[in-house]
Amino acid sequence: MNNINNRPLILVTNDDGDNAKGIDVLTRIMMKLGDVIVMAPDGPRSAQSNALTVTHPIRFKKLEETEGLIRYSCTGTPTDCVKLALNEVVERKPDLIVAGVNHGSNAAVNIIYSGTMGAVLEGCESGILSIGFSICDHSPNADFTLFEPYILQISETALANGLPRGVCLNVNAPTGNINGIRIARQCDGQWTKEYAKRIDPQERAYFWLTGSFENYEPNAEDTDEWALANGYISVVPAKIDLTAYETLETLKHWEL
Amino acid sequence: MNNINNRPLILVTNDDGDNAKGIDVLTRIMMKLGDVIVMAPDGPRSAQSNALTVTHPIRFKKLEETEGLIRYSCTGTPTDCVKLALNEVVERKPDLIVAGVNHGSNAAVNIIYSGTMGAVLEGCESGILSIGFSICDHSPNADFTLFEPYILQISETALANGLPRGVCLNVNAPTGNINGIRIARQCDGQWTKEYAKRIDPQERAYFWLTGSFENYEPNAEDTDEWALANGYISVVPAKIDLTAYETLETLKHWEL
Repeated sequence: MNNINNRPLILVTNDDGDNAKGIDVLTRIMMKLGDVIVMAPDGPRSAQSNALTVTHPIRFKKLEETEGLIRYSCTGTPTDCVKLALNEVVERKPDLIVAGVNHGSNAAVNIIYSGTMGAVLEGCESGILSIGFSICDHSPNADFTLFEPYILQISETALANGLPRGVCLNVNAPTGNINGIRIARQCDGQWTKEYAKRIDPQERAYFWLTGSFENYEPNAEDTDEWALANGYISVVPAKIDLTAYETLETLKHWEL
Repeated sequence: MNNINNRPLILVTNDDGDNAKGIDVLTRIMMKLGDVIVMAPDGPRSAQSNALTVTHPIRFKKLEETEGLIRYSCTGTPTDCVKLALNEVVERKPDLIVAGVNHGSNAAVNIIYSGTMGAVLEGCESGILSIGFSICDHSPNADFTLFEPYILQISETALANGLPRGVCLNVNAPTGNINGIRIARQCDGQWTKEYAKRIDPQERAYFWLTGSFENYEPNAEDTDEWALANGYISVVPAKIDLTAYETLETLKHWEL
């Protein structure tokens, strides 16, 4: 895709797969802002975090090419999709990488499990402005209508302002009416009661991942979970440097 | 495993699989410190990050039970191993979760791809003292001898001092002689030239993940990469809260 019109180049991916409603919505919105390349997993890759495919090779294929849009699918994870697109497909560095719209919340600790946010962290690591969009509705038919103008506005503003190297955005929307946007921090909490135990016909146990999220700070009004519970879109700046700087001095006093 | 002797309970896992040399070494060291439960993947799960198994159920089985040690294998990812052990296996909350010893470096940005560090972040998220140990040698026969006394010392000291909620340790060792320990931060850098392209007999392209790491701050003496390049063990405190706090104020001035 030649940049003869100076429009931004935008790479789109997700973890729900190239057939998900959410990526169609996101692709359509991004086409208002620039030329779009989609590289999405060829099936669901939820909860793939930053997983990489290392035990076998991956492939990609072109699904569609129209004015301002080329769509590919890839056999790998969301992070594979970003790496493969950047290394083997794009002719110039994208101005923006977006992932989603994810069917389901990626707020709070879900950021570390999410394939969608894995792709965003990967884009960020590559030095490219990167944003993940998710809605708190797992349904394949989730309604993104009210979220759409905010996705456009946040993406436009991010393109205009940029972000520091190593910082990306984790954007989550509530279901139902939206009261506006809150800049927020990642809420502390934990998944509990995580497995449903079943017994197979050979009387061997097997375990399905399930669970419920326990919010450790339900009254803190500066968290993403508070924003979502109160009808706001949460925008959390997230970073790829995991260093706990505030603990460095403590460790230097350990007797090691 | 009843706690009749008040010894610490230690959960051990890895991403190289239950047959790897590194987890045998780590298990043997941990048995000097407490009662040990191993829950390791039943095969290699490198670069699985914090991936969770959601599209099919998982299982585990007991491999061995001896004085102070029970070993299980699990069909899931390293993060699955920690979740399943904590939810379905342990009778009391472990005092320490350790992962490794990983065959290969998990320094710098490798922390976000590593299955070993995924397990450590999961343990940390569960409110348990958690440490990942890795050596900069991918060989199945990597020599851990010089690293072993440091693994024991770091684990003992961590058990004695504890860490704040949400903070864990990423410990990496160089190959060859060890000059000591450096408390360090995560080095900035990026993987480049990441794919080896091959053509199959049907003339279709496929791509193997490969690449080389480019250090963006080779002269910064406070990074994990500097420590390792200079013969030191790097100890990086890492956190599960990815919020870029220093960017919150900037975002609040965006016109959203």
